[in-house]
Amino acid sequence: MKKNILVVGSVALDSVQTIHGRITKGLGGSAVHFSISASQFAPVRIVGVVGEDFPAPFRRLLKRRNICLEGMTVMSGKTFHWKGRYNEDFKNAVTLATELNVFEDFKPRLSAAHSKCGVLFLANIDPDLQWDVLKQMDSPRLVACDTMNYWITLKQNSLKKLLARVNLFFINEEEARQLTKEYNLITAAKMLAKMGPQIVVIKRGDSGSILFYGGETIAMPAQPIEKVVDPTGAGDTFAGGFVGCLAASPDWRNFNVLKRAMAYGTVLSSFSVENFSVKRMEKLAKSDITGRYNKYVKSLSIS
Amino acid sequence: MKKNILVVGSVALDSVQTIHGRITKGLGGSAVHFSISASQFAPVRIVGVVGEDFPAPFRRLLKRRNICLEGMTVMSGKTFHWKGRYNEDFKNAVTLATELNVFEDFKPRLSAAHSKCGVLFLANIDPDLQWDVLKQMDSPRLVACDTMNYWITLKQNSLKKLLARVNLFFINEEEARQLTKEYNLITAAKMLAKMGPQIVVIKRGDSGSILFYGGETIAMPAQPIEKVVDPTGAGDTFAGGFVGCLAASPDWRNFNVLKRAMAYGTVLSSFSVENFSVKRMEKLAKSDITGRYNKYVKSLSIS
Repeated sequence: MKKNILVVGSVALDSVQTIHGRITKGLGGSAVHFSISASQFAPVRIVGVVGEDFPAPFRRLLKRRNICLEGMTVMSGKTFHWKGRYNEDFKNAVTLATELNVFEDFKPRLSAAHSKCGVLFLANIDPDLQWDVLKQMDSPRLVACDTMNYWITLKQNSLKKLLARVNLFFINEEEARQLTKEYNLITAAKMLAKMGPQIVVIKRGDSGSILFYGGETIAMPAQPIEKVVDPTGAGDTFAGGFVGCLAASPDWRNFNVLKRAMAYGTVLSSFSVENFSVKRMEKLAKSDITGRYNKYVKSLSIS
Repeated sequence: MKKNILVVGSVALDSVQTIHGRITKGLGGSAVHFSISASQFAPVRIVGVVGEDFPAPFRRLLKRRNICLEGMTVMSGKTFHWKGRYNEDFKNAVTLATELNVFEDFKPRLSAAHSKCGVLFLANIDPDLQWDVLKQMDSPRLVACDTMNYWITLKQNSLKKLLARVNLFFINEEEARQLTKEYNLITAAKMLAKMGPQIVVIKRGDSGSILFYGGETIAMPAQPIEKVVDPTGAGDTFAGGFVGCLAASPDWRNFNVLKRAMAYGTVLSSFSVENFSVKRMEKLAKSDITGRYNKYVKSLSIS
């Protein structure tokens, strides 16, 4: 079970509008984007909740990627539905509607098989629930989490309690600044590392990402993409590639492995933005990933 | 003379305020920032103008870096003086005063030695003057230029006429979008390349830079800097490292050389922001550069 990844987070239907079109009730949610990405590297199990309206084709799509859905409970009611819009710069989503539905009563309960997974990803949910899940785990070898501005504002103490117990923290740049009250991202990353996580990854959208580990800071660029269609889930897809790569490695306490993880996260998320929902990701072959990964690595190799 | 770089641009006194302090009438100007950086790689000659108030210590500082000042005319009156302020995000300078002084009547005239330089950098000045300088050159092997929003608005036709004749165009991301009316930077870079330059470099501040050459796009991250003191001149310092590296190479039509140039530009500009004016750059030893360059290259090497 050392390689098995457990992810706890949202499973959603997303209705999104961008300059390149729109989609109504496409497959989304942090746990979904993460899983589809991570499943390219290691077996993934989702713990989440959906309503009775959750489409069977979406369930089949996840199963085709070998994602275990035993922990995806069906509750009476509707699936979490998010409605949003992006402007031309794709920077900030404008939320048009958030219908939590069954997600409002989400109380993650882990089975024995779940709790024995070697790797845990706590996607962006209430930090009290993240903590609750962590306590149900049977000594995982790697615990990673994400969060968002909402929890930093409303449940900062719970978040900090959690951070003291995670190995790897994903956060985007605005949130890193919000949580540390520090503008400079290196200083902010150092402050975040002091809260607990050995590895801090600051996600910067099309400006790339910054890794802080063992006192060292490494920046990597985003893979330039000519036609960004829908950035929803790019951060979770990044985390999926990153955590997936670490899960597949015998030891994650290693700079080379961490850089590879960062590059895979970058490459996976560059695919995810090329189409709405998971339309690009669901069709992704191993050779697509390897091809773009090798090109990305080569582009950064300076001799 | 193949390696010799001629730079035409402003020589200025800059008064700058940032969250880390202030400086009054420090050495500045595009030609100065470029020269000090490029002089680490190849001999540089400045064509510019200063007033009678231009401090002798600044002249000595430039000469210590082996920069030829024969083309730096002294006119009666005062040196160009820029006064500005940056906010915490260091993104956009707020101009408090622009006293053009002698720079208003700048008419660059090249000597025989100037016109025989193998490499020309046309720093950000009126594109009609840039054109005028280019016509005085005796078949340089590399012509590079920079510009700014002001000229894109006021003299776009002159700028486009110039672009048809340059090999290498530096532009920052907002200006690339302004000139092409295209938000996506890869598409914008392609459109800029169609205007003439074989190499387009889009400068993105702390988000790094994008190189477009031979149909390929390469993104590189900025070197993370924990204490940014003053970003004035970082773009010209970047161009200085880039052009300097190319000037020192026998052939610039080569992806490896261009990537090295980009990395040197990145590293040089990361030093320049660490102190006001040219205070960090004037003290820079070759070993400082090599040390940070090797670290930067290693950080991007993924095995």
